[in-house]
Amino acid sequence: MAKAHVLTSRADDFPRWYQDLIAKAELADSGPVRGTMVIRPYGYGLWERMQQEMDTRIKDAGASNAYFPLFIPQSYLTKEAEHVEGFAPELAVVTHAGGKELEEPVVVRPTSETIINDYFSKWVNSYRDLPLLINQWANVVRWELRPRVFLRTTEFLWQEGHTAHATYEDARDYAAHIHRNVYADFMENVLAMDVVPGRKTARERFAGAINTLTLEGMMGDGKALQLGTSHELGQNFAKAFNTRYLSKDGRQEHVWQTSWGSTTRLVGALVMMHGDDNGLRVPPRSAPIQAVVVAIKGDDGVLAKVREIGDRLKAAGVRVRVDDRTDTPFGRRAVDWELKGVPVRIEVGPRDLENGTAVLVRRIAGSKESTAIDALSALLPRVLEDDQALLLTQSRRRRKDRTVEVTTIEEAEEAANSGWAYMPWARLGPEGEAKLAERGVSVRCLVAADGSVPESDDQPGNVAVMARAY
Amino acid sequence: MAKAHVLTSRADDFPRWYQDLIAKAELADSGPVRGTMVIRPYGYGLWERMQQEMDTRIKDAGASNAYFPLFIPQSYLTKEAEHVEGFAPELAVVTHAGGKELEEPVVVRPTSETIINDYFSKWVNSYRDLPLLINQWANVVRWELRPRVFLRTTEFLWQEGHTAHATYEDARDYAAHIHRNVYADFMENVLAMDVVPGRKTARERFAGAINTLTLEGMMGDGKALQLGTSHELGQNFAKAFNTRYLSKDGRQEHVWQTSWGSTTRLVGALVMMHGDDNGLRVPPRSAPIQAVVVAIKGDDGVLAKVREIGDRLKAAGVRVRVDDRTDTPFGRRAVDWELKGVPVRIEVGPRDLENGTAVLVRRIAGSKESTAIDALSALLPRVLEDDQALLLTQSRRRRKDRTVEVTTIEEAEEAANSGWAYMPWARLGPEGEAKLAERGVSVRCLVAADGSVPESDDQPGNVAVMARAY
Repeated sequence: MAKAHVLTSRADDFPRWYQDLIAKAELADSGPVRGTMVIRPYGYGLWERMQQEMDTRIKDAGASNAYFPLFIPQSYLTKEAEHVEGFAPELAVVTHAGGKELEEPVVVRPTSETIINDYFSKWVNSYRDLPLLINQWANVVRWELRPRVFLRTTEFLWQEGHTAHATYEDARDYAAHIHRNVYADFMENVLAMDVVPGRKTARERFAGAINTLTLEGMMGDGKALQLGTSHELGQNFAKAFNTRYLSKDGRQEHVWQTSWGSTTRLVGALVMMHGDDNGLRVPPRSAPIQAVVVAIKGDDGVLAKVREIGDRLKAAGVRVRVDDRTDTPFGRRAVDWELKGVPVRIEVGPRDLENGTAVLVRRIAGSKESTAIDALSALLPRVLEDDQALLLTQSRRRRKDRTVEVTTIEEAEEAANSGWAYMPWARLGPEGEAKLAERGVSVRCLVAADGSVPESDDQPGNVAVMARAY
Repeated sequence: MAKAHVLTSRADDFPRWYQDLIAKAELADSGPVRGTMVIRPYGYGLWERMQQEMDTRIKDAGASNAYFPLFIPQSYLTKEAEHVEGFAPELAVVTHAGGKELEEPVVVRPTSETIINDYFSKWVNSYRDLPLLINQWANVVRWELRPRVFLRTTEFLWQEGHTAHATYEDARDYAAHIHRNVYADFMENVLAMDVVPGRKTARERFAGAINTLTLEGMMGDGKALQLGTSHELGQNFAKAFNTRYLSKDGRQEHVWQTSWGSTTRLVGALVMMHGDDNGLRVPPRSAPIQAVVVAIKGDDGVLAKVREIGDRLKAAGVRVRVDDRTDTPFGRRAVDWELKGVPVRIEVGPRDLENGTAVLVRRIAGSKESTAIDALSALLPRVLEDDQALLLTQSRRRRKDRTVEVTTIEEAEEAANSGWAYMPWARLGPEGEAKLAERGVSVRCLVAADGSVPESDDQPGNVAVMARAY
């Protein structure tokens, strides 16, 4: 099948390939207001699966969902100095409402630390109220100068967790728990993404945090993408909003806090991590459609058979779609399912019917073979798990192949043209980091010598992971 | 137990009772910007259960979720004349963003008909693309002059369905299908709410619709609340946005459309429908916590036993919470669970432990009896179903008791002080409706003589259902 014309190839123009794929796989369109996007049903289906998987893990971590208002009084933002400095240039402001000019303009939330602290300060009175573990699924707005669909949009969807703890240690451990057991676990085991867990340098930290933990992924072009962050906020917001509790020994203490988020950017990451020149490849565990049963022709027997196969696979626990739209040519539909990256395609035509077989096309393994229809229900769950594992292996291999150890800034800059560079942080330091930044290369995170997450920037043996980033 | 001081009684002051309950059961707080609200974890848990149940039904009706931007160019709103007239006074407008004044101000969506039609006009080309069935879970903003928590808030959460069809009949049938099989089914069978399905009069229709179907519920004070609506939009938006398709016989035709929505108002409805003077009573099928196992004292044996009971009930499919916060007095926790309306409370103290029993307190049936611990797992699912049915029966009985047939406007006004009034629409008519409106009473809907939903306002035998409404 000639696919050369469906997408630009990744090697020719990766950004163009990405945009083409998003449009042709019907993941998203640009919105009418600059930098906004419309998430189409197939793209939203990917996000819904991500939400389900993360929400389960967030609840397992003891947090409850809640909802805080979209509109924040402008004065709240200014209460934490670093925070307002970080977000001021990106704010959208409502000045008129209900036909009148507002007395105090309100900002559309860029994140909810400030408004949530306003309520935490009311809800937290005693040590009995701690830890307070809240999560919210919401839209946020950050005015983007250089928007790119899913990766940097003026409005995006996310979850933001906000917690308050009695001690520094408890907050630190909870931020690390979310980083490891919610984000890293989800990304590796559901999204089949190789991720590097690490610690942000002071330069790259969240505005208002004392420590930011991150997960960085290598995209198909060797660039890095930040996939999810977990922040220790210390007592910065607690002091700004006077969020205090009565301790067991009767003292008023400020709480210690965390916040953590992951966004619809993950849909873009899925594309850039696993996509190939024929389109997306969706890891089976995160696929809204794991298998599509395609009627090649609109023959009555074929239509009955594809529906029967669909029912049987559904009963076997497979998320399945039946494609019986035979008024659209088969070839066009096959290309469309390739683009959308549905892991398994089962094609049934009149000849297959006679033989009791179907053609099983595996999008990830790239294989295509005739298979007994009666064997499909038993076969498919195994095939899907194999292909899930294969994607993770491929993504690990890419990072390994494209990572080099360097000893100078020049070498780092050179390496970042096609992948990542590792260099001792003691050698690079904040000055080297600043120089690299001028050349478009950033320290994505620091990792300890043994690959674990460092407890401080200056822990001996820390290695800087450097890359160009989205 | 003395409960007189926990809540104002409904008979004394229903609005005050409502506000007290929302605050003390920790469902929601007021937001810092006028008319907004913070939905606290327990209130949000109720909404999450509603979302799950509705989302399943919406998907069974063939619709897919998607997401459209929060920001709509002001010019879009003006394209459909009735629509803009309906919403103009309630809009919130962003005039500044990214540190600059915007060239064209953008409105924060009050609903998404306009922006969705902009995309439908791009996505729909041929009859093969129809029906196009989309749903979105989102926040919307309508500036409220007289806000009331959950019932009328400046920002609220909702689902909004938007569909396009080839024919008038298909659109009409789909709007009716959603009305019946998504909303009515969910409200009766999950929320245990008695609802009256009907047709809005021309005066009460959605701005831009040719027909609005509604479900009206009678609250504890006899007033009405609109619980969910399903609109036939005809070709109004299709013509305004030029949404057309190529028919099978090769002609360009405008699509026929529907939209339908239900909101966080349903949380308020649950309170006003099922609450009593001791607090909320949550129907078991919609309860985030169906049973709470309460340790009366912090005795080791008791703590081990409540955790064991919790695990067993969880294994039996009950949504269960273990309350082992024995540093808070038992009486206070018991009142708190009453307020929150958790259907079943299982109380375990040292004496119960000796006897192998627990006290089973049923919030809805109002009973309290000693029960063998070993019998709980088998007993609870039946108890929960019985109490679910009991709530629906109670809500049906209230409406029956508080509905009267009247023959004059004066009688209708009088009846609306404590309940609903029925009167032939042929006798009332739009003029009578206008007079009633001046007196604060509205026609909630028209129902046919046999209780079905009329096909037109003037169908012979139509009855007007009149009430004061929230």
